[in-house]
Amino acid sequence: MAESLGVAVLGAGHMGADHVRRLDRVISGARVAAVADPDGERAAAAVRGIDGCAVFTDAEAALAAPGVDAVLIASPGPAHEAALTAAFSRGLPVLCEKPLASDSAAGLRLVDAECRVGRRLAQIGFMRRYDSEYRELKALLDSGRLGRPLMLHCTHRNVSSPPGFTSAMLVSSSVSHEIDATRWLLGQEITAVSVLRPRPSGGAPEGLKDPQLVLFETAEGVVVDVEIFVNSGFGYQVRCEAVCEAGSARVGDGHTMVVQSAGRAHEEVAQDYLVRFRDAYDREVREWVDATRAGRVTGPSTWDGYAASAVAEAGERALESGERVAVELAPRPELYA
Amino acid sequence: MAESLGVAVLGAGHMGADHVRRLDRVISGARVAAVADPDGERAAAAVRGIDGCAVFTDAEAALAAPGVDAVLIASPGPAHEAALTAAFSRGLPVLCEKPLASDSAAGLRLVDAECRVGRRLAQIGFMRRYDSEYRELKALLDSGRLGRPLMLHCTHRNVSSPPGFTSAMLVSSSVSHEIDATRWLLGQEITAVSVLRPRPSGGAPEGLKDPQLVLFETAEGVVVDVEIFVNSGFGYQVRCEAVCEAGSARVGDGHTMVVQSAGRAHEEVAQDYLVRFRDAYDREVREWVDATRAGRVTGPSTWDGYAASAVAEAGERALESGERVAVELAPRPELYA
Amino acid sequence: MAESLGVAVLGAGHMGADHVRRLDRVISGARVAAVADPDGERAAAAVRGIDGCAVFTDAEAALAAPGVDAVLIASPGPAHEAALTAAFSRGLPVLCEKPLASDSAAGLRLVDAECRVGRRLAQIGFMRRYDSEYRELKALLDSGRLGRPLMLHCTHRNVSSPPGFTSAMLVSSSVSHEIDATRWLLGQEITAVSVLRPRPSGGAPEGLKDPQLVLFETAEGVVVDVEIFVNSGFGYQVRCEAVCEAGSARVGDGHTMVVQSAGRAHEEVAQDYLVRFRDAYDREVREWVDATRAGRVTGPSTWDGYAASAVAEAGERALESGERVAVELAPRPELYA
Amino acid sequence: MAESLGVAVLGAGHMGADHVRRLDRVISGARVAAVADPDGERAAAAVRGIDGCAVFTDAEAALAAPGVDAVLIASPGPAHEAALTAAFSRGLPVLCEKPLASDSAAGLRLVDAECRVGRRLAQIGFMRRYDSEYRELKALLDSGRLGRPLMLHCTHRNVSSPPGFTSAMLVSSSVSHEIDATRWLLGQEITAVSVLRPRPSGGAPEGLKDPQLVLFETAEGVVVDVEIFVNSGFGYQVRCEAVCEAGSARVGDGHTMVVQSAGRAHEEVAQDYLVRFRDAYDREVREWVDATRAGRVTGPSTWDGYAASAVAEAGERALESGERVAVELAPRPELYA
Repeated sequence: MAESLGVAVLGAGHMGADHVRRLDRVISGARVAAVADPDGERAAAAVRGIDGCAVFTDAEAALAAPGVDAVLIASPGPAHEAALTAAFSRGLPVLCEKPLASDSAAGLRLVDAECRVGRRLAQIGFMRRYDSEYRELKALLDSGRLGRPLMLHCTHRNVSSPPGFTSAMLVSSSVSHEIDATRWLLGQEITAVSVLRPRPSGGAPEGLKDPQLVLFETAEGVVVDVEIFVNSGFGYQVRCEAVCEAGSARVGDGHTMVVQSAGRAHEEVAQDYLVRFRDAYDREVREWVDATRAGRVTGPSTWDGYAASAVAEAGERALESGERVAVELAPRPELYA
Repeated sequence: MAESLGVAVLGAGHMGADHVRRLDRVISGARVAAVADPDGERAAAAVRGIDGCAVFTDAEAALAAPGVDAVLIASPGPAHEAALTAAFSRGLPVLCEKPLASDSAAGLRLVDAECRVGRRLAQIGFMRRYDSEYRELKALLDSGRLGRPLMLHCTHRNVSSPPGFTSAMLVSSSVSHEIDATRWLLGQEITAVSVLRPRPSGGAPEGLKDPQLVLFETAEGVVVDVEIFVNSGFGYQVRCEAVCEAGSARVGDGHTMVVQSAGRAHEEVAQDYLVRFRDAYDREVREWVDATRAGRVTGPSTWDGYAASAVAEAGERALESGERVAVELAPRPELYA
Repeated sequence: MAESLGVAVLGAGHMGADHVRRLDRVISGARVAAVADPDGERAAAAVRGIDGCAVFTDAEAALAAPGVDAVLIASPGPAHEAALTAAFSRGLPVLCEKPLASDSAAGLRLVDAECRVGRRLAQIGFMRRYDSEYRELKALLDSGRLGRPLMLHCTHRNVSSPPGFTSAMLVSSSVSHEIDATRWLLGQEITAVSVLRPRPSGGAPEGLKDPQLVLFETAEGVVVDVEIFVNSGFGYQVRCEAVCEAGSARVGDGHTMVVQSAGRAHEEVAQDYLVRFRDAYDREVREWVDATRAGRVTGPSTWDGYAASAVAEAGERALESGERVAVELAPRPELYA
Repeated sequence: MAESLGVAVLGAGHMGADHVRRLDRVISGARVAAVADPDGERAAAAVRGIDGCAVFTDAEAALAAPGVDAVLIASPGPAHEAALTAAFSRGLPVLCEKPLASDSAAGLRLVDAECRVGRRLAQIGFMRRYDSEYRELKALLDSGRLGRPLMLHCTHRNVSSPPGFTSAMLVSSSVSHEIDATRWLLGQEITAVSVLRPRPSGGAPEGLKDPQLVLFETAEGVVVDVEIFVNSGFGYQVRCEAVCEAGSARVGDGHTMVVQSAGRAHEEVAQDYLVRFRDAYDREVREWVDATRAGRVTGPSTWDGYAASAVAEAGERALESGERVAVELAPRPELYA
C-alpha cells in the first residue's frame, strides 16, 4: 500500500486527543501530521512523543501544513461548518465527528458545498455503523431472512448527564445516534417525530425532562420507539430490537445477537478460532510490537512454552495408560521467576 | 514513539500470511521487513503489495536481512527450535506461535539457551491471555473478590478435526491452550494429569478417541476438568468457569462474563461509551484511513449528517409541543443517491 | 379445612373444559358440581367421568343446582353480564374469565350491582397477576428498591390470530392483559391512550392492522409502550421491562427476572431446594396419587433406589482411596426390566 | 375418577409435614388418612385442621388404620426398610423419600421382597425426574435428535451444609440425585466411580472435603463429571449439560433449556398461552378456591374489569383516529378502595 496518510486533527479535547492516540498508536497506515486547537498547550500535550507533527492554534493553518492529506474534525460542533468548508475548498477528505454542524440549515449549506466540489469528501462520525453488533443486525435485515422490518425498539441509557445538558439535548445530541441508526438500518428517511415525557426521574437534575420516549415514523411505515434516559444511574446501555415480518433480532444485551423466529430464540456460534479470537490475535501482536519497540519482553515465556509441552506429554501418557500421570518439571530458572 | 519495528515473519502458511497482513495493515508501528518460507512462491504471495519487504526461502537468511529488528515465527512446530536458537544468537526479540518446540526436551534446551543470553527474548503465542473475556476472568481471580479458586470447568469444542489429527493431538495440540490458561489463570504449575475417554462420537473419524475428559491437578490443589471435543459438529466454543470459595465466574458463553456470588448471577455493564464502543471507534477510523488511502469516501455522508440534524430539530419541536411533528427534508442531491 | 367447594362452570368450550379438568384433577378442595353450556353435548363431554356433576343448557339453572357454592364463568363475553348478575343476586362468589362484559357501560352496571350487594363477590380472570414472573416483578416494584417506576416496555406476540380477529381486537382483547398488568404493577389508573400503526405485516390477514404500538400514560406520569403483534409467526411471547429511577427489571425473556442497577445486570438464585424444586415435588406426588388411584406404579423403582445406593457406596470408597472403583450390581430382576 | 386416595404419611418432620400439606391442600384426589411419628406431638401438629386424620406414634399402626390406601414414607432413612417391608406385606403402594434404605444390602433385600410380592408397589422419591427442565432434557435425549450422549457435565451446589454433614455424605446423600439422574437420563447403569478432591474451601467446616469432583463411567461408555459443593455460599444450583454426537443441551442455568447444534445456541419458545401461563391458571384457580372456602374474595375485582374495558375502548378510538385519547373513568366506589 502507498505512503502513510498524513492527518490533520482539529480539536485536542477528550475526543480529539483520543483520535490522535488512535492514529498514532493503533491504526496502521496513518500518521498525525498536524494538530490544531485554540488552546495551543492542549494541542502540544496531545502530540507529545509524536515525531514530525506540527501544532497550531488555527484550524485553517493546520490544513495548509506540509504532509497533510486528510482531516479529522473533533472540534466543538459550532466550529464544524468552517472547518468542513475549508477542507472542501482544499479538496481534502474529512472524517467529521457528529454533529455535522450547528443546525440543519448549516448542514444543508455543507451539502451544497460538497455537491459543488462534485465528489464526496466527508465521512460523518456516526460510529454505531461500525459497531460489530449493529453491523450484524444490519446484515441480517439486508439479507431479507426476517422479512421487512416493522418496528424498532431502542434503549439508550447513560449513567448521568454532564453539566449543562438540556431536555432538548436528549433528542438532539443523545438520540441523534438512534436517528442515524434508524436511517441506516432501514435505508429509509424518518418522516415524523413524537416525544412522550414521563415524569422526570428523581435522579435527574432539577428541570431536566429525563427520561423521554421518542417515536419515529419512517417513509415506509416503520415505527421506532427510543427510550432515552441520560441519568439512569445504571450504566451505558445501547440496545436495539428489530421486529420484522418473520421474526425479530436484538443486539446490545450483553450477549451475541439473539434472533427469534419460528418458535426459537437463537444465537449464532463462531465456527472458527480465527473468528472467535480475532481480537485476541490483534491484541497479542500489538502488545508484542509495543513492548518490543520499548525494549521489553512480556507475555508467555519460553518457560511457559516448555511447561505446556511437559504437561501435554504427561497428558498423552495418561491418555494411553488410562492412569493418572504426575508431571515432572525441571527447576525453574531465575530468568522466569 | 521510535522508528517502526521491522519484523521478519517465518512461515507464510495460513497463520503466517495472516500475521503478515496484521503487521502490514492492522498494527501501527510495525512493518514487514522480510518473509521466509521454504515455498518461495507462497512467501512472495504473502507480501504482494508491501513495499520494501524481502523474500527468502531460508529462515536464517531472513533474520540477517537489513531492517530486521524482531522475528515472528509461524512456521511448523518442528522448525521452531532452530529458528528460536538463531534469533537468540542474534539477540532478536521473538513472537513464536505455539507450540514452543517439538517436545519438552527441545523446550528445555530453548529455556537453557535463553538463560545463557541472560534476558528474555521470546513471547510464546498462547493467545488466550489476550482474549478480553479471559483477561476479565484473570483480573477477577487476581482481585481475590471470589476467594481462592478451587476448580476450573473448561470446554473446548471444534466443528471438525483436520486430516491426520490423532487421539494424542487432542491433548498435545488442542488442550495445550487450556494447559497454558490453567497455569496463567491460577499462577500455579500443573502436577498431575488424567484422561477419561468416553465412547468416541460417531461423528469423529474412525479410530479417533474424541471427545475426551482431561483432568489436571495443580500445586495448590485446584482440580481442572477439560472437555475436548474436536468433532462436535457444532461450532468453535471455548468456555471456562472458575469455581472459587466465595462464588464462581464463567466466560465464553456468548455473553459478557457471568459472576455468581451471594445468591446472584450478574454481569457487569459498561459505564462509558468509549468503553462500550472502543472497537467501533477503532474500526471507524481504520476504514476511513484505508478508504482515503485508496482514494475512496465511504461511510455516513454529509447528507446523513444533514438528515440527522433535520430529524433532531423536529424532535426538539415535538418535545416542546407534545405533538407529532412531520420532518421536511430538502431534495436529496444526486451525489448522495 | 372445610367441605370441598362445589363449583358451577358456565361454558364448556376450550377454556371452560380446561377449567373443569383443573377443578376436578388439579386443584384440591374443589369439585365440579354443575356445568352449563347451550350445547348440551359439549357440556356432557366435559364432565365425562366426574361423579355427581349435573349438566345444564341453561346457566341460571346451573347456579340453582344442589351443591353449588361458587361459579366459574367461562362462557363468551356477551353472556357474562347476565351470568354475573345472576350470581350476584344469589350471593355466589364468582371467578369470571376476562373480559368482564361486552363494554365498559356493562362493566359499570356490574360494579353498581356488586356495590348493591355490599361485598365483593367477583374475581376477574386477569391471570398475569398469578404468573410467578409478574409476581416477582410486582414484588420488586413494591419494595421500592428501584425507586419509582417511570416507563414500562411491553411485548405481546402471538403466532397467528384466529379467524375474525379485527384491528380493534388487538387493543380490546389482546392488550387488555397489558392494561390490567399496567394498572396492577403500578397501582395507578391509565389516563390516556395513543396507538401508532406501522405498516401491516405481510404475514397478517388482508386488512388487519397488525402489529401496533399502543401507548399509555398513567395518573402519576408513567409512560407505557406495548408492542402487540398477533401474527408474529414466531411464538407466544410476553415480556415486560419496568424502567425505574434506580434501575430496571425485565421478565418474560425465557429466563429468571433480570434486574439492572448500579452497573450490573443480575438474576437471583434460589437458596433452597424446596424453592427450586417446589413444582417437581408437587408433580411427583400428583403423578403418584393419579397412578395409584388408577392401580398403576410408575416412577423410580426399588431397583433404582438399590442401584443408587450401590453407586453411592462405590463413590464413598473412591473418595477414601483416591482410586477409581468399579460398581457391582446384583442381577436385575424381571420385575424391573 | 374414583374415591380419593387415603394416604398414611410416616414421619412428620420438615419433609413429612410438607407432604401432609401437599396432600391436603395441593393435590386433588388424595386425603391424609393417618400420620405417624415417634414424636406424637409433632404428628398432631402436622395434621391440625385436617378432618378425619388419625395420629400414631407407631408406623405399622398407621398402615393398619381405616381408610389407608397407600403410604408416603418421609421418616429418616434407617426407618425405611421396616416401613417398606410392612407396606409390601400389606400390598400397599408406597411413595418412599430417598434414600431407599440405609445401604445397598438393605436395598437388595427390599428388591427381593417386592419381587416376592410379584408386582411393583414402590416409587422412590428421586424428584429430579419430575422437574420440568430435566424432563425436557430427557425428552430431547430420547428423541435422538442430538445423537447418542457422550458426556454429562453436572453442577450441584448448596449454600451451606447442615451440622454433622460428612465428606462421605457429599457422595452418598447429595450426589445420589445425580446418580439417579444419570441412570434415568441415559438409561444405563453406572459401572465405575472416581472422586477428585480439590483443596477444601475455606468456607467449609474444618475437615470436610468440600467441594469434590465425582466421575462416573457408564455401561455404554458415557463419562459424567459432577461438581458437588455443599458450602458454596452462593445458592442452590443444579445444572446439567448433556454432550451428544450432534450437539449439546443444558438445563438449570436460570433460563429455558439451551440446545446447541449446527452453529447455533437456541431456546424453544412457547407457541400457546395455555402452555406459557399453565401454572398461572392453576394458581389463579387455586387461590380463588382457597379464598372462597375461607369466605374471602381477592384478586382482580369487578372494578378492575370495568377499568380495563374503559381503557380498551379509549384505545380503540385512538387506533381509529390516530390521536391520543384521554380515558374517563367513573368515580371509584368505596367497595374497591
